[in-house]
Amino acid sequence: MKNYNELYNTSLFLLTDFYELTMIQGYFYYNVNTEVVFDLTFRKTPFGSGFIVFAGLQPLIDIILNFKVNEEDIEYLYSLKVFKKEFLEYLRNFKFTGSIYSVEEGEIVFPKEPVLRVHAPIVQAQILESIILNIINFQSLIATKTARIVECAKGRTILEFGLRRAQGIDGAISATRAAFIGGADATSNVLSAKIFGIPARGTMAHSWVMSFDSEYEAFEKFAKLYPENVILLVDTYNTKGGIKNAIKIFKELKKKGIKNFGVRIDSGDLETLSKYARKELNSAGFKEAKIVVSNELDENIIEQLINRNAPIDIFGVGTKLITGHPDASLGGVYKIVAKKIGKRILPLIKISDTPQKISLPHIKNVVRFFKENKFLFDVVCLENEKLNKYKFFYDIETNFKVKFVDNDETKQLLKPIVKNGKLVYTFPNLYQIREKTKHNLSLLPDEYKRLINPHLYKVCITERLKLMRENFIKKCQKYLIK
Amino acid sequence: MKNYNELYNTSLFLLTDFYELTMIQGYFYYNVNTEVVFDLTFRKTPFGSGFIVFAGLQPLIDIILNFKVNEEDIEYLYSLKVFKKEFLEYLRNFKFTGSIYSVEEGEIVFPKEPVLRVHAPIVQAQILESIILNIINFQSLIATKTARIVECAKGRTILEFGLRRAQGIDGAISATRAAFIGGADATSNVLSAKIFGIPARGTMAHSWVMSFDSEYEAFEKFAKLYPENVILLVDTYNTKGGIKNAIKIFKELKKKGIKNFGVRIDSGDLETLSKYARKELNSAGFKEAKIVVSNELDENIIEQLINRNAPIDIFGVGTKLITGHPDASLGGVYKIVAKKIGKRILPLIKISDTPQKISLPHIKNVVRFFKENKFLFDVVCLENEKLNKYKFFYDIETNFKVKFVDNDETKQLLKPIVKNGKLVYTFPNLYQIREKTKHNLSLLPDEYKRLINPHLYKVCITERLKLMRENFIKKCQKYLIK
Repeated sequence: MKNYNELYNTSLFLLTDFYELTMIQGYFYYNVNTEVVFDLTFRKTPFGSGFIVFAGLQPLIDIILNFKVNEEDIEYLYSLKVFKKEFLEYLRNFKFTGSIYSVEEGEIVFPKEPVLRVHAPIVQAQILESIILNIINFQSLIATKTARIVECAKGRTILEFGLRRAQGIDGAISATRAAFIGGADATSNVLSAKIFGIPARGTMAHSWVMSFDSEYEAFEKFAKLYPENVILLVDTYNTKGGIKNAIKIFKELKKKGIKNFGVRIDSGDLETLSKYARKELNSAGFKEAKIVVSNELDENIIEQLINRNAPIDIFGVGTKLITGHPDASLGGVYKIVAKKIGKRILPLIKISDTPQKISLPHIKNVVRFFKENKFLFDVVCLENEKLNKYKFFYDIETNFKVKFVDNDETKQLLKPIVKNGKLVYTFPNLYQIREKTKHNLSLLPDEYKRLINPHLYKVCITERLKLMRENFIKKCQKYLIK
Repeated sequence: MKNYNELYNTSLFLLTDFYELTMIQGYFYYNVNTEVVFDLTFRKTPFGSGFIVFAGLQPLIDIILNFKVNEEDIEYLYSLKVFKKEFLEYLRNFKFTGSIYSVEEGEIVFPKEPVLRVHAPIVQAQILESIILNIINFQSLIATKTARIVECAKGRTILEFGLRRAQGIDGAISATRAAFIGGADATSNVLSAKIFGIPARGTMAHSWVMSFDSEYEAFEKFAKLYPENVILLVDTYNTKGGIKNAIKIFKELKKKGIKNFGVRIDSGDLETLSKYARKELNSAGFKEAKIVVSNELDENIIEQLINRNAPIDIFGVGTKLITGHPDASLGGVYKIVAKKIGKRILPLIKISDTPQKISLPHIKNVVRFFKENKFLFDVVCLENEKLNKYKFFYDIETNFKVKFVDNDETKQLLKPIVKNGKLVYTFPNLYQIREKTKHNLSLLPDEYKRLINPHLYKVCITERLKLMRENFIKKCQKYLIK
């Protein structure tokens, strides 16, 4: 399997909302296949986080560039008695010929700024909506969750153990990918490990211990078979007794020169039991023995355990990582921001009673400003706008002025990924993306990384963009009043 | 595509936790391939619900009976340097030869009672753990969520609109299936609709309205193309203005004899706006016009809207249905309950410091008692136990006595699905399962269906099972004390 996309026996073209198909038939039928521009934007961060880790781009682009409407799909759509033959003929040869700009996977992004931009005839741009939102929303959610967990684990190992509590098959597989991007060290999911080429890890279940006549025998048999990684689950009957049995095994192993061992605690009070285990292991002379814990962990519990000096080396994190608890979805939205009329580009805006839902018009870029090699703020500007002519930018929410800071490094966040239907970007591998996340997070000042009540990162707009938005709102208000 | 399983290009054998593979290699290596019995049990209901709708059985069984370890999988496992050649040879010919008993999809079940039981050599029974939990936990979660939504919608139409907020590709596809089982009327997800043969539905997006020079033109063009289902999205610019434009269109349609029309409201205060829309539509003579609403709906919001007489005909429910908000996972567990030693069956139990985690030993059945054609209580008993010899049962949590009630109908919940590796059950189609759910819910007294603080349905155990559990706990406590 070269691509994750190849997991599926079918093109995912039909993984779309029904209204996308009826709308694009409408555009096709009325011959209004205008060139348009759509933006993907996150409305807010999940988990009260100070940042979002962007993920999901490669699987998304693989799917889009491999769209294929097969005979069975055509027959199915025809059977619905809603789609006309000419439109279905058009779909039969559907190919994405537009352009996609996006921030890279592992980039740190913030609400309200465009993170992905599609330029295409409206029939093509519209049909991408559901798949873009499905894949980017979920993978960014899980990458962000994992990054929070990894940040507060301060270098300790994080294992993703989520398969059994994930939301379906791909709720597990694509979450493993996103978790690795967010900084997880390994997964328990063997199929994910195989597809993505990342480490698979695991210990033993209580049923292993219960399948032998005694806990000691179960440990002994395991250690004999897997001497490279002897992590013994000590809480099947009684954790303290389990630790005693584990120590007996470690004595035997040490005689043979084996030192790669430890205990896993999966229930009870993890602070108390890990401290107890450390003390017992140390007094038996096993300072090198690792302590692994699991059981409904999340970033808050891990941070607390570490703050209270629980001597834990490895955290197995399942349910709450794999589902992004307590926010099971990230509200990314995909909105039309411009259309071409003749040779002119006409900016568009979505007005709403809810001010947070008002979009930013026109084709935009995002520039990140750095100071002393740390993120300072982001500026959303019109395409090709020169930023150094400005003395001020405006906060995207409050319109407060933000002073331009000279002589700092800047970075364009949106990179060309697809141009006229051709891939123009070389996807880094998952290990490289994981490093990118780590590097980017190291440039984000600590106050934005607090788990609770983080500092609010500033996203600004330029004066031209501010005026354009204001004019739109004025025009629409006239419309509303009459 | 005959089976949902065929969506995947690969057998899902490797969609398992790494420790399942290392454990089964252990059983294989030590030749302890004992016949064992595992139970699947839900520890608690999600959402504070009074019941759980069981779902996911057919996809699960399809996957298990089609396990195939291919050459690429073998090579991958070999490359990990953990698995021995003889074991990989065994895997190459892996086939499930055991038996599976399960409640049927669409059955109503309760915490603590076994809902699925596997009899197999431990190598086979163990490897099923991850896939059973992944599929049954998620589909039962979403079927339960949807059933709650459908119950409080009191006959109004429920459309599942979740694709863009779902947890990945299968987080959408398998949730559509589960939502239909729970009672949803249709889905927006075209691929799901195609795979499962269920209705696809949709309206239009704001981008449709924004792509034309005026809202009126956008509505007119839509109505001309889709006269069978003219649901117009009226809140792109201003809801009241949108309703005016919609009414103009409906006048034209009515002249042509078309009556299948309505408006959709996707923002703002849904009670106020739906009442406003109903009034305007009625005074214009369009009592037949439907009102569709959407925007972060869940069962609580829907119940409140209906209690306040909001005149809504159709609810589009997305994020909160598709992710099972606020409980993104259902904590089903799969525990060993018996093993065969020679010709004897030895019951097993998992003891834990947390009393809720103590399992029920041995091979068990579940019998549901009915009174006046309504659910009365469930009894978990040992296999082949005669229940009419008992005067009392015992509450599974409190051990309080529950009086046996004579002359009532009873029903065995666990049905044989697979025997010795062969399917012995005819799967109903999804429409039949949906009817089953509806029928079963109609037999569940209303007090168990309240959204908030429902009455607690009684699950009992027999005296023999109670004594067996008590003896186990006594034995283990001795072990703990020494």
